[in-house]
Order: sequence, then C-alpha cells, then structure tokens
Amino acid sequence: MNDMRQMTSLGREIENNSFAIIDEEAGHHSHPPGDWEVVRRIIHATADFEYKDLTKIHENAIRDGIQALKNGCPIICDVQMIIAGLNSERLDAYGCKTYSFISDPEVIQRAKENNSTRAIESMRKASSLGLLNGSVIAIGNAPTALLEIVKLVEEEGVRPALVIGVPVGFVSAAESKEALLDIKFQSEYSIPYILTRGRKGGSTIAVSIIHALLLLSTEKKF
Amino acid sequence: MNDMRQMTSLGREIENNSFAIIDEEAGHHSHPPGDWEVVRRIIHATADFEYKDLTKIHENAIRDGIQALKNGCPIICDVQMIIAGLNSERLDAYGCKTYSFISDPEVIQRAKENNSTRAIESMRKASSLGLLNGSVIAIGNAPTALLEIVKLVEEEGVRPALVIGVPVGFVSAAESKEALLDIKFQSEYSIPYILTRGRKGGSTIAVSIIHALLLLSTEKKF
Repeated sequence: MNDMRQMTSLGREIENNSFAIIDEEAGHHSHPPGDWEVVRRIIHATADFEYKDLTKIHENAIRDGIQALKNGCPIICDVQMIIAGLNSERLDAYGCKTYSFISDPEVIQRAKENNSTRAIESMRKASSLGLLNGSVIAIGNAPTALLEIVKLVEEEGVRPALVIGVPVGFVSAAESKEALLDIKFQSEYSIPYILTRGRKGGSTIAVSIIHALLLLSTEKKF
Repeated sequence: MNDMRQMTSLGREIENNSFAIIDEEAGHHSHPPGDWEVVRRIIHATADFEYKDLTKIHENAIRDGIQALKNGCPIICDVQMIIAGLNSERLDAYGCKTYSFISDPEVIQRAKENNSTRAIESMRKASSLGLLNGSVIAIGNAPTALLEIVKLVEEEGVRPALVIGVPVGFVSAAESKEALLDIKFQSEYSIPYILTRGRKGGSTIAVSIIHALLLLSTEKKF
C-alpha cells in the first residue's frame, strides 16, 4: 500500500521513528492490535497521549469500518477539512466518495430558517439523499452534527456502518459523544463507533482514524 | 465581519458560550489582548489548555500578520487541509491567495530525486516562484517544511511577513520551532512568528491562528 506511506526514504524514516517513539512512550495499554493502530495514529496526529485513554472503539468498529470502505461506501464528513486531509488515491481505489454539505446553499438557507446549525442541516441533507445507510460518518468539528446523527439513528432508522465521533469543543462536544456511546434502538443493538471522550477531538483526528482503517484494510485478516 | 462568525443565532450562541468557558477556565495569563485572541482560538480548536503556555508570539507578529493579510499577501501552507479550513470569503475580500505545493508533480519528483521530503521541496518551489517575501507562511504538519523556511531566511534572504510554525510530531517538530525562535540573520533582527513550542500543533491550529488574525483585522487599532 505504497500510496498511504511516505514517498521518500527520508519521509518513511521520519514516520517509522515517530511510531517507535509513540509505542515506547505510550507504555501499557489494553487496546487490541487493530484498535491500537487507530489510537497510535491519533497520537501521531496530535502528539497528545491523552488520546490513549480518551479513545473508545466499539468491538465491531474496525471490522465493519474496513468492510464498508472496501465496499466503496460513501464517507460523510461535517467539514471540508477532513476531505482535504484524506488520501484520495486509496479512496478512489475502493470507489469511496466523500461528501460535506456544510457550505451547500440549501443547507445554509435551512439553518437560517430553522435557527438550527449548518452542521445539523448538512446531516439532514445527507440523510435525505440516502447517503447515510452503510456509510462511514466522520464528525470532527460540530457536536450538533453528531447529536443529529444520534437522532437520525434512534428516530429515523438510519444505519451507518461506522460513526467516527470526534467533534471538539466546550459546548455539547462531550455530551454528543456520550449520546453516541449510549445510542439506543431496538433492544440491545448499537452502532459501531470510534470516538474520543470529553472535549478533545478535531478534523485531523478524524483523518487519522480513516487513514488507520485504510492501512489496516490491506492486511489479510480484515 | 459577519462572514467570520457563525451564521445562525444558535451557532453564535454556542460560539459565545465556548469563549466564555475558555476565558473563565484559562485563569491568569500574561498574553496581551491581541495575542490572547490568537491563543483562545487555538484552545477553542483543540480543547487543550496547554496551548496557553506553549504558544509564543513575536512582538510584531499580530501587527505585521494583519497588515500583510490586509495587503492581500500570499498565504503559503504546507498541507491542503489548512487551505480547506480557511474562510475563503474573507481572504477573497483582501485579495489573499492560498498555495500548497505538497502534491505538485514537480515537487514529488524532486523529493524522490533528492531523497528529501515533499514538504521541503514544496517550500523551495514557493520560494523559486517568489511567493515567500511579504507572505504569511503556515506550517501545520511538516517539521521539515519549517526547517526549510528557517534555512531560506538565514541563507537566501527570504523575508516573510509572518511565519506560523505549528508542525506536530515526534521527530524534529519541537526542534524546528526552536530553530524558528532562534532564527538569525543580520544582527538582531528576527522574523515575526506565532508558534507552539514542543511536539504539539496541527493544521487546525494553523487555521485558528489565521482566523484570529482575520477577526482582529476588522478592529480599528490594527
């Protein structure tokens, strides 16, 4: 999977040394190997070891996320920054298309009419276009977008393959992730998630999670 | 400056509450008001109060950065994610154009030929096009790009208006920022900088710094 790695030997050396430092400094943890690939990529993108404990991964998230990507699922992002950070060659190889409706004129219009947020309306738009079922949803910025996804799952039967819930912020970010953890529909079922508890998150974290899944997707066991 | 603010009253309320929480929890600090506008936007983008102490701002950085933006300076970024995160309406209003050469075919070719990095070659390309003098340079990802900027200033007389040095990582990130702090040419002169000491940084932080400058640029005193 050469197109996910650094292109020059100097670049690869820097990346390898970085991960060696992370593994050494991270010390003990209880993440299984697939999950750890995600967590160490988050730490690589932030230089923040708090993510070792903040990151919570549903038991089916790695498997289902990789399968969805290999099936060429849509990737729905709250902000354009996530799309800009993704490796488009690898997504093209799987046939995955990326979407962000945050700057869509209809979304902006509805946010004003409803006094909601553009993030909320952008998720509604993705849902109305039928893009959410089987998708990977990546929320790196707006808690209101993640809360809307929880609502769409619980009340309207939307079934994404994986929800990456890593919005950042001081108002509702932590709460939106707890809502994702506690998502309820039917009896015991839950939606596979990868999230960072508390206030911390961001679009670079969403990108690092998807890149970790893309790297894992080339391994035989997935 | 309506186009830099949240568009709906709900969105604005969330943003205002966020900054109120940041100001309250940040406690004592010695940042002057203009600097603090930058630092609190970094905290807003990361939910990480460590940036209160990690962020170092040259005494002329706010003034010179704003002036350059108002003059419609080029903005040179190491990665496309920064460009995707910037408010294009406000930049258009000032006539600022954004550049990232990391995926330029010539840059990729040279990185392989020289066994350097794409980030290094992308800065060299910007320099060869005469884009760096008077520019705002924003490095959010690659320490090697920032080290190359320091070299171009010290050895080739390049004179950016402001260098935003916030690469993230475990190999050379901290060192690249110390090199920017210690930049030397002529006798006592230095290049205005905004940087985050140590390993932490990222493209969302570079975006938040530029947005803080754009917001400050509408105030009369600048």
